[in-house]
Amino acid sequence: MSIVAIVGAGLVGQGWAIVFARAGWQVRLHDVAADRLAEARDLVVRQLHALQAQGLLQDAAAVARRVETAPTLEAALDGAAYVQENSPERVDAKRALFARMDALAAPDAILASSTSSIPASLWSGDLPHRERCLVAHPVNPPYLVPVVEISGAPWTSGQAIARTRDILNAVGQRPVVVRKEIEGFILNRLQGAVLQEAMRLVRDGVASVEDIDTTMKDGLGLRWSFMGPLETIDLNAPGGIADYCARYGAMYASIGASQAEAPAWDAALVETLSRERRAALPEEELASRRFWRDEQLMRLMRHKQQSGDEHG
Amino acid sequence: MSIVAIVGAGLVGQGWAIVFARAGWQVRLHDVAADRLAEARDLVVRQLHALQAQGLLQDAAAVARRVETAPTLEAALDGAAYVQENSPERVDAKRALFARMDALAAPDAILASSTSSIPASLWSGDLPHRERCLVAHPVNPPYLVPVVEISGAPWTSGQAIARTRDILNAVGQRPVVVRKEIEGFILNRLQGAVLQEAMRLVRDGVASVEDIDTTMKDGLGLRWSFMGPLETIDLNAPGGIADYCARYGAMYASIGASQAEAPAWDAALVETLSRERRAALPEEELASRRFWRDEQLMRLMRHKQQSGDEHG
Repeated sequence: MSIVAIVGAGLVGQGWAIVFARAGWQVRLHDVAADRLAEARDLVVRQLHALQAQGLLQDAAAVARRVETAPTLEAALDGAAYVQENSPERVDAKRALFARMDALAAPDAILASSTSSIPASLWSGDLPHRERCLVAHPVNPPYLVPVVEISGAPWTSGQAIARTRDILNAVGQRPVVVRKEIEGFILNRLQGAVLQEAMRLVRDGVASVEDIDTTMKDGLGLRWSFMGPLETIDLNAPGGIADYCARYGAMYASIGASQAEAPAWDAALVETLSRERRAALPEEELASRRFWRDEQLMRLMRHKQQSGDEHG
Repeated sequence: MSIVAIVGAGLVGQGWAIVFARAGWQVRLHDVAADRLAEARDLVVRQLHALQAQGLLQDAAAVARRVETAPTLEAALDGAAYVQENSPERVDAKRALFARMDALAAPDAILASSTSSIPASLWSGDLPHRERCLVAHPVNPPYLVPVVEISGAPWTSGQAIARTRDILNAVGQRPVVVRKEIEGFILNRLQGAVLQEAMRLVRDGVASVEDIDTTMKDGLGLRWSFMGPLETIDLNAPGGIADYCARYGAMYASIGASQAEAPAWDAALVETLSRERRAALPEEELASRRFWRDEQLMRLMRHKQQSGDEHG
């Protein structure tokens, strides 16, 4: 049985533990706050049973048995083929932690960070085995949202990238490769593009917050939940994507020219956003709406499994 | 029974006929090419039966009986409470057609255009009853993708906008209001923002076409198919959207600064897009993949109905 070390047992680490244990891996959960490890494991087990209740997992108890806690970093990494780090977003702390892990891990183990904002080149450059260090950035929670962004430093080996991709595919995730270090990787860059346009429309009084959300969830977001934006346009012109670009390139160039300036997320804009959202959902209902969201996500993932989601 | 006139019986008009007939309206389908009307009605009926086969419609035959053809514009508009125009995207032709319709329609009937690119102010300004003219831009096919963008001219009355919103809601669509005339309305502006960033990533060699699509369909697009981007961020920070903006505003400002320039959709970029898409899906499979897409969309809509999709 392959062994994964999960270093950092907060929400993100707990999510990774579920991903690997569900796929049959032996999971070693570690945290510097050793006194919170038992609680972290309890939260993992509770979530496994919730997934079973939703029909997304067959035998939560069997999966839970594969999740153990490791009181020391040494114990966590001993024999691990893959290490997933989930510590706070501080570059110095990551540099020190990866130096220890690089010394402890088997030479061919992959050392991956969940960081969303600190590129691998900032914390792996001085390590003896820096070629096996990379970012594997998940979406929360990774056991429901499968995409993982793999982003190496310039010195990360192609072999390490390929092995990480294989491992993540094998545990049921959908890895993508960011070929050059870039702020926001792919996901937050796409999200940012949408958010900036949404902010522009709200700031300029073109549309309400609710109508922007409706346009996505009852329009654009439907196809995008089973095809991407590029397959979508490939199918939206008789001759495919080249035909689409020929037909609509001028329109999108014109729209694009009006989207050059990133709107300031200033007090006036935030006030408008907040007023409209709080009118739709009072602050005291945020927590229950998050449960609703997670349940919708679970239902959607079950639906996608049943629909035989396939690659285009 | 309320009467709708569908003027222009191509794909878009056929889609509208299904929307209104399904909701119990009497539909009058008209086209300048009167000899193709019977065929258009046949296509509507065939699609109604396909929807029934997918469990999205109870009694296709009963719905089909509410769809009739009208040989003349006069016959189509007689007694119609709502008129939906779907002629080719030519401003002169629309101006002439709306002049005739404005003269024929009952004074309080709504005159709506399906145009995606010609604002109401360009074809309605000279009409005696211009205050009831507006754009109601659907997504194709409207009986599966419910969002409709309502965009009036400066002289369109608030009453006409409100009545259109009520009518579209009543027939099961999800209308949104574009408060100022703007190129691309809301949907194509959001889509454009995503496409421009996707093009940038492909052009710069950051990610493959497939990995960009995976990032959307197995990442961002999941939540966006039942919440919008703004509700998503509202739930992604403990204190709601204002808290989210405070935490991540600087990151998105930095990403946004690198997205200012709209990439040229030039020959080299289109060649890359086309090569990667045709490797994933040969040209001769485009048609069958569109059937797959429509079936996925029908399954997703049935799933959303069962999940009790609610407003946030």
